[in-house]
Amino acid sequence: MLSIVIVGTGNVANHLFNAFTKSREVKVAQVVGRNQDALKSFGSTSAISSDFTQIADADIYLVAVSDSAIAPVSKLLAKKSGIVAHTSGTVEMDVIGLENCGVFYPLQTFTKGKMLDFTAIPICIEAKHESALSVLRRLGNLISDNIHEIDSNKRKRLHLAAVFANNFTNHLYSISEKICEQEDLPFELLQPLILETAEKVQSISPRDAQTGPARRNNKKTLERHLNLLKDEKQTELYALFSEAIKKMYEEEL
Amino acid sequence: MLSIVIVGTGNVANHLFNAFTKSREVKVAQVVGRNQDALKSFGSTSAISSDFTQIADADIYLVAVSDSAIAPVSKLLAKKSGIVAHTSGTVEMDVIGLENCGVFYPLQTFTKGKMLDFTAIPICIEAKHESALSVLRRLGNLISDNIHEIDSNKRKRLHLAAVFANNFTNHLYSISEKICEQEDLPFELLQPLILETAEKVQSISPRDAQTGPARRNNKKTLERHLNLLKDEKQTELYALFSEAIKKMYEEEL
Repeated sequence: MLSIVIVGTGNVANHLFNAFTKSREVKVAQVVGRNQDALKSFGSTSAISSDFTQIADADIYLVAVSDSAIAPVSKLLAKKSGIVAHTSGTVEMDVIGLENCGVFYPLQTFTKGKMLDFTAIPICIEAKHESALSVLRRLGNLISDNIHEIDSNKRKRLHLAAVFANNFTNHLYSISEKICEQEDLPFELLQPLILETAEKVQSISPRDAQTGPARRNNKKTLERHLNLLKDEKQTELYALFSEAIKKMYEEEL
Repeated sequence: MLSIVIVGTGNVANHLFNAFTKSREVKVAQVVGRNQDALKSFGSTSAISSDFTQIADADIYLVAVSDSAIAPVSKLLAKKSGIVAHTSGTVEMDVIGLENCGVFYPLQTFTKGKMLDFTAIPICIEAKHESALSVLRRLGNLISDNIHEIDSNKRKRLHLAAVFANNFTNHLYSISEKICEQEDLPFELLQPLILETAEKVQSISPRDAQTGPARRNNKKTLERHLNLLKDEKQTELYALFSEAIKKMYEEEL
């Protein structure tokens, strides 16, 4: 049995809380956060506190707060003997500033109210000491089959890759939604395409899955599309993507 | 019972063939194409021909060829009384140049060898005459629950939206795969994220689903990410996306 304290009340804290309360091998000793309203949603099954001087003892403190709050929050845990691990993709482990430190970064996009199956979610762990690493691995294994040891330097770059695969992808969905709206077309028309595009790269490398006018260097369609676009940013993105795709495949054309 | 001839042997032809041969209400009278090797894969369950002067009679001719081949192929069907409909997202219906013409455009990305459930795939139909439109609707309903009447002008813009949602999105996946490769990280780490990003917008508007450093205007992370990038096109895309996302949400920040 491992005991944990979750510090933070945002999306990551929420989803980790839901995953861990399902495991009989973990006791969520406490959830700590400043936001009293957000804290209430944890209250029914666990102890909650907004007093950072009254943090319970536990084997692991999961610091699921905003990047800039990791250092100051960690300081408040300086006298604890348990492992202090943050959950951020970008922040280096050393920012915690304590000897018994680590990282427990679940690589997924978390939405309020949308349940997730944690089993397949990659959890990237890191720790200063081997003993802490094995405890974090044990903790991860209780909720996921996908635990990876990844250091701060690699994790930073993995997070950058995730920004392309998630944040920027979502913005492309937004643009496509906008174009539909301008034509009074329902965005639902694109939903099966969006899903299949993502499903395809679960088994095929995206390099091999690329299709479309830029991939075939179909100049006529590229030109027509550019003429249809009115928004400046959309036009710039269209041109830049088309160039980048052409460049990636030019040796094959 | 409707009879159809499929002209073309590419991905769209293949997937339409597979969908229609499952329906007892459609008879695929013939598959016609120049590529003899590709034709063979249709041969076991249907008549095939590479002789365009020997096209069978049918209610509908689905012209699933490359955009530039639609006009010349349609000419070869000038003496037929059935409906001649192409399957392209970008080409105007009138390019067919025949009185009994139409469009039957399945809005999906088709991969060789990857089976698809056609039921949810939107099929965009158009026809010069009401009678042809109702036949195309009947044909579409046999394989999909998602039939939409969309004219050439709107279809062009829908296809443009699909390029953003599919082609460009896939290129973002490629970039994220490249970044992983450079760090010896398995692309598998990003697959659950990619799938969840697509699943999210099946029920939430992408505008509301946007997350990440650009959305929060987290300048520190944006700057760090730009410093990590070495590839020129990746850097340009990163900067342009961050600007576009900031612009979309600036009134909220």
